Amino acid sequence: MEKLTSWVEIPPNSDFSIYNLPYGIFSEWLVGTQTTAKATQTAEKARVGVRIGDYVIDLKAVSELGFFDDIAFDKNVFQKNVLNDFIILGKNIHSQVRNRLTSLLLRGNESLKNQADKVLVKVENANMHLPVHIGDYTDFYSSEEHATNVGKMFRDPANALLPNWKHLPVGYHGRASSIVVSGTPIHRPWGQVKPADQENPVFKISQMLDFELEIAFVVGKETALGERVSTSEAEDYIFGLALFNDWSARDIQSWEYVPLGPFLGKNFGSSISAWIVPLEALEIFRTQTPTQEPAVLDYLKFEGLKNYDIQLEVMIKPQHGETKKVCQTNFNYMYWNMCQQLAHHTVNGCNLRVGDVCASGTISGKEKDSFGSMLELTWRGTNPIAMPDGTERKFINDYDTVIMMGFCEKNNIRVGFGEVSGQILPATAFKS
Amino acid sequence: MEKLTSWVEIPPNSDFSIYNLPYGIFSEWLVGTQTTAKATQTAEKARVGVRIGDYVIDLKAVSELGFFDDIAFDKNVFQKNVLNDFIILGKNIHSQVRNRLTSLLLRGNESLKNQADKVLVKVENANMHLPVHIGDYTDFYSSEEHATNVGKMFRDPANALLPNWKHLPVGYHGRASSIVVSGTPIHRPWGQVKPADQENPVFKISQMLDFELEIAFVVGKETALGERVSTSEAEDYIFGLALFNDWSARDIQSWEYVPLGPFLGKNFGSSISAWIVPLEALEIFRTQTPTQEPAVLDYLKFEGLKNYDIQLEVMIKPQHGETKKVCQTNFNYMYWNMCQQLAHHTVNGCNLRVGDVCASGTISGKEKDSFGSMLELTWRGTNPIAMPDGTERKFINDYDTVIMMGFCEKNNIRVGFGEVSGQILPATAFKS
Repeated sequence: MEKLTSWVEIPPNSDFSIYNLPYGIFSEWLVGTQTTAKATQTAEKARVGVRIGDYVIDLKAVSELGFFDDIAFDKNVFQKNVLNDFIILGKNIHSQVRNRLTSLLLRGNESLKNQADKVLVKVENANMHLPVHIGDYTDFYSSEEHATNVGKMFRDPANALLPNWKHLPVGYHGRASSIVVSGTPIHRPWGQVKPADQENPVFKISQMLDFELEIAFVVGKETALGERVSTSEAEDYIFGLALFNDWSARDIQSWEYVPLGPFLGKNFGSSISAWIVPLEALEIFRTQTPTQEPAVLDYLKFEGLKNYDIQLEVMIKPQHGETKKVCQTNFNYMYWNMCQQLAHHTVNGCNLRVGDVCASGTISGKEKDSFGSMLELTWRGTNPIAMPDGTERKFINDYDTVIMMGFCEKNNIRVGFGEVSGQILPATAFKS
Repeated sequence: MEKLTSWVEIPPNSDFSIYNLPYGIFSEWLVGTQTTAKATQTAEKARVGVRIGDYVIDLKAVSELGFFDDIAFDKNVFQKNVLNDFIILGKNIHSQVRNRLTSLLLRGNESLKNQADKVLVKVENANMHLPVHIGDYTDFYSSEEHATNVGKMFRDPANALLPNWKHLPVGYHGRASSIVVSGTPIHRPWGQVKPADQENPVFKISQMLDFELEIAFVVGKETALGERVSTSEAEDYIFGLALFNDWSARDIQSWEYVPLGPFLGKNFGSSISAWIVPLEALEIFRTQTPTQEPAVLDYLKFEGLKNYDIQLEVMIKPQHGETKKVCQTNFNYMYWNMCQQLAHHTVNGCNLRVGDVCASGTISGKEKDSFGSMLELTWRGTNPIAMPDGTERKFINDYDTVIMMGFCEKNNIRVGFGEVSGQILPATAFKS
């Protein structure tokens, strides 16, 4: 197979090759105004874009030039400030749009190239927004290594996995309102914490602020209440994937979470990457799933390669110090795959809406440097990470930026997610 | 104080006195078409209505007649199919609209009465819709009696309440997509259940389908991420209250819920009443809160009467048999009040959006007939309820309709919620 190349200049090792073409929502920074008020910066209306190399392709502009005229759909979807209306059009239209874009971007095709100044926006001039309106956010807990690590630390090392864990993809509902796009800073939360040596809880600023490295998928097709999605149908209901950081305040979480699950330890913020990589772009990176033993119930059985070989890493960037890579892992570790997650989620008739986000849960591998949270990497703070500037980290410090990256690579083809990053700002003052 | 009366005929003991004036979303059944296809039934566009007696006041029509002309707001909010845009206008506008409606409806005021045929719709001709677009749904667990009962049954009778329970209003995120308006039937869910005498779980139709009697409040004012709402500010953020049935499949829930909380045991459906009673209408029904001991942390302290005296009851109506009242209780039992719930929910900076729904958790009283779920009423099925037709109920049967009602009464003034009802339909066939 000859490798496709584009007339758009794409840096070597770019996540955003012509094989990727992820969707996002952008507005244009007005040139030279990056430092002025936000109102000015976002004067250009947010709309749908596709990333290639270091450019955003303005799909509204491409559409207005007539390049989608022969594909039958409402072109207004590209003027919206969320992807939902485009996603609702369905996989058939998505494929046609994707194929058209691929063709227009191929080296040798001059038609769009001749209008490049009208459709290409440099990434440094693009202000990225939350890509979808998220109706519901579900967080799974599908990495065996993560669940085992947490079980060892907080429960019984000999029986780290709870009895239900290998029978169903454990999941729970998280907060949709506080999901923010990559680059949005998050304030360290206050909360109730129960010191081990005290009888009563205290109210304080969280001292155990953590990240959780996850991959999220965006639901691409709705179901009615009472309807089920089987594992074999599930991919039809997945629009695309993103990087996801499910920020966690471990000290708040451990006091509050019985018996109904995490709440304030999680809902102060979660970060999602700006670009949603369509499932279609990940096709050649499918890989085997771990053996599931004991055998799962019939509704969780599946056929084929349902995991994806996505290389993942996490960096901590102190305010002034050098960035340090603290984790390197892979999405292929997941015990429960996305098709099983969706089949389980809907088996009771729970309805899906386009734009719902389901996240994997923390992705940890088998090696100590492949754990997807500080909780595991430093083993609850007992084994701090040395930073290049001489400081150490048990958890995340104020002004640290956590950067997660992910990409697939095979046969010299690279399809990546860019990054999801977020800086932790100090807790806000408390007026009592 | 002289009692207000209206020119609209209001049946004695109506929940919908002139003191109530709750908001909802309705469309008109076309006369004589109730039995035809839904498309025909909802041909009239859904819009904002206010209930009085056995009528819905069409606020779009009232507005078009000019009765709100001197109140400065966008009248298009009354044409929307959810209340959110009206709620966003804020308490000042809500009060002005409410005062105007009260005045227009008073006996002796002929101005609206003269146009009654243009603005009044008989309730039997009104098709009620989900009143708000719900961004996030949070469920609390704020009844001491309920938490104690559950703790006794599933954990340790001697230490029924978990250590955190009296220090914070335990809550978790539920599913927003599956909240339906009163009257919508719900299919009994399938799910994984772990029989006590078997090693492995089985996949079956839930046999322990339960209701949970709750009161929900609708968030009326948004906050930014990182912002907090104090207990003294909290009422500004509450638009109004509704009845809420948080359907629960106990057998699914008890197997899945560790360690991250309820998921499929709850998210197959929740029912909310069609009418949202504004907080203002409940003012005279404020009542004392239970003493909180041990003392709560400063951010949970509050002043004044923060509970509400709302009488509640639950009925089970078999498909053919006689209806039986199975529970009678009161919202004033709540240990944690709504202001504390909101202060806790936002103390970590979690942001609120208009239309978010927060539910109380099951409301149980001290007496055996005041428990708000079948789980407690039949003590996990060990003490079944005898029905008038000779059958008995441990949980809810197929084709049973569960009806919850709630009202306040004081000084001959009644303000009620009507009902939230829902019929349980058999599980749908499973194609495997």
